[in-house]
Amino acid sequence: MIYTLHWVYFIIMAAGAVYFYVLSRNPQGVPRYEYVIAIFIPCWSGAAYLSIALGQGFLESNERVIYFARYLDWVVTTPLLLLALALTAMFYKKEKDKALIGSLIGADMFMILTGLIADFSTGAQKYIWYSLGVLALLIILYIIWYPLRNIAKSSDKQLGKHYTHTALYLTAFWFTYPTVWLLGPSGLGLTQDGVEVLAFIILPIFSKVGFSILDLGGLRKLGLQKDKSRTVQM
Amino acid sequence: MIYTLHWVYFIIMAAGAVYFYVLSRNPQGVPRYEYVIAIFIPCWSGAAYLSIALGQGFLESNERVIYFARYLDWVVTTPLLLLALALTAMFYKKEKDKALIGSLIGADMFMILTGLIADFSTGAQKYIWYSLGVLALLIILYIIWYPLRNIAKSSDKQLGKHYTHTALYLTAFWFTYPTVWLLGPSGLGLTQDGVEVLAFIILPIFSKVGFSILDLGGLRKLGLQKDKSRTVQM
Amino acid sequence: MIYTLHWVYFIIMAAGAVYFYVLSRNPQGVPRYEYVIAIFIPCWSGAAYLSIALGQGFLESNERVIYFARYLDWVVTTPLLLLALALTAMFYKKEKDKALIGSLIGADMFMILTGLIADFSTGAQKYIWYSLGVLALLIILYIIWYPLRNIAKSSDKQLGKHYTHTALYLTAFWFTYPTVWLLGPSGLGLTQDGVEVLAFIILPIFSKVGFSILDLGGLRKLGLQKDKSRTVQM
Repeated sequence: MIYTLHWVYFIIMAAGAVYFYVLSRNPQGVPRYEYVIAIFIPCWSGAAYLSIALGQGFLESNERVIYFARYLDWVVTTPLLLLALALTAMFYKKEKDKALIGSLIGADMFMILTGLIADFSTGAQKYIWYSLGVLALLIILYIIWYPLRNIAKSSDKQLGKHYTHTALYLTAFWFTYPTVWLLGPSGLGLTQDGVEVLAFIILPIFSKVGFSILDLGGLRKLGLQKDKSRTVQM
Repeated sequence: MIYTLHWVYFIIMAAGAVYFYVLSRNPQGVPRYEYVIAIFIPCWSGAAYLSIALGQGFLESNERVIYFARYLDWVVTTPLLLLALALTAMFYKKEKDKALIGSLIGADMFMILTGLIADFSTGAQKYIWYSLGVLALLIILYIIWYPLRNIAKSSDKQLGKHYTHTALYLTAFWFTYPTVWLLGPSGLGLTQDGVEVLAFIILPIFSKVGFSILDLGGLRKLGLQKDKSRTVQM
Repeated sequence: MIYTLHWVYFIIMAAGAVYFYVLSRNPQGVPRYEYVIAIFIPCWSGAAYLSIALGQGFLESNERVIYFARYLDWVVTTPLLLLALALTAMFYKKEKDKALIGSLIGADMFMILTGLIADFSTGAQKYIWYSLGVLALLIILYIIWYPLRNIAKSSDKQLGKHYTHTALYLTAFWFTYPTVWLLGPSGLGLTQDGVEVLAFIILPIFSKVGFSILDLGGLRKLGLQKDKSRTVQM
């Protein structure tokens, strides 16, 4: 059952990658690197979950299962998701703000690594690492909702709207992750293993493929208008 | 014997690094980062093989040997080789195409990691990972032979010729790698361990130091002409 | 005792990060990415040492302790320190020299990884890896003192002075590291474990937080002057 779910995930990710590739054939004014990011995320995540489907990407220790392949997934895909969001905010900026992008990616990798250590820790140690991870998440959310959102809003009204929707979508899912983690066997152990597994199948489908559909869809609309009006230079 | 071969490899790599450093003292119109890449590749690869020569970079498991130091080598040097090739294609472009470079490097790291997992897997699992790696290789070859080659050909006739030679050289060697892997003990086990070891000594000498000699040599000729004609801006 | 020391280190690093964040609120003409680097370094290093404080970031093997968390610290923070120094040298350059930055970071990661392997090795192997690491250090010092210093000196007299001070500070501490390593239990074992531990608490406080205080302080002065004179464009 768990294996089947991970196979289903792998197939959905592969389909997502193919879909974004098809979109990229007609880019509609959206830079090609946006498509490269959207294609690479499900490829990487699909391969990570494939390793679980094949019975490899997890360890059984102390009566519970540590799915380390998830962290291998996250450490690559979550910086890319944040990069995509940051590039959306800076869609009309010719010079991308490297300080903001660096902060986001630094805080994110810090969050994923502390989460990994927390998963391998027990007792008080687990919650110290978990708290550091949540602190990094709060810094990420601050950057998303203040400096990045201001860039988007100040450069174009419609871009500001699109950015706010995309950021809200990402925020909603990213708050769900540590909640599921905390309630599940990696954390407090309130929910059963199956619930956590199911959540970590459904959540990333929405927060990865779903996110890119929303993000690229909005940018393509903006890109088309730009092509028509010819007022903004590429 | 195996140790001696790896020591020989280490010395050839060190000599290659020194040679490219000497070339860089008289760059002949080739940007310095091309030399930095050419120098770093044999340093890294030499250190990885040194760990095998010292009896450290491999694991003996299930009656066969896994040379994990090779993957540590490849995960760094193969993206750099592709970066060098992509920069050759974009030699006359002031703005490098980040989407193409990102795609190449992403696909390449995917290929190396799936190869590593395949080496640690058995039975059907091994061939699923191997197939994903070959799929990534096909994507890399597509990028090398279509978008990158078009950039080289469209910017200058002589650059197009040089790029085609260099790409052909790399392609020939990169097809040999998975073939040797598949026939050897990491794959089907048709050839003996010694044959694979010897192949993985000779192949990388040509595909690393040999590649950079060919690539830099061609670019230096083009760079000299550019310096003489003064028609293209640096 | 050892745990307490590592907790103290963690608190000092956290205080350093907060201090650089406060400075960044009033950047005084220093680009924001300089602050991002200065903030990220103590965050990462603090977390690495926290893992030692929590009893996790080390391994006990063969009657001695390997603090692998230190390498996890160094592999991220030392490239960032060198990046900060290189960016200081290129403070007035609009186009940063990627070949030099790449060389520095490549040589540095090579140095940290060979150090890690040396720590896990014994006998002659240990000194082969250690020597390669020292060779990489010499390359780093060459880049710091020749090409980078020339960039700083040729662009502005005061910047040249500030760069020389900062480079001298870093060089002094970076020479102390391999000396402590060599004398301590990771190397010859002449000093006691406690001495090495204490040294690796005090040294990084100066070479990380101390370095950034010196570096940012000097740049802020230069930035202020620039703002006043309005002769140099940002």
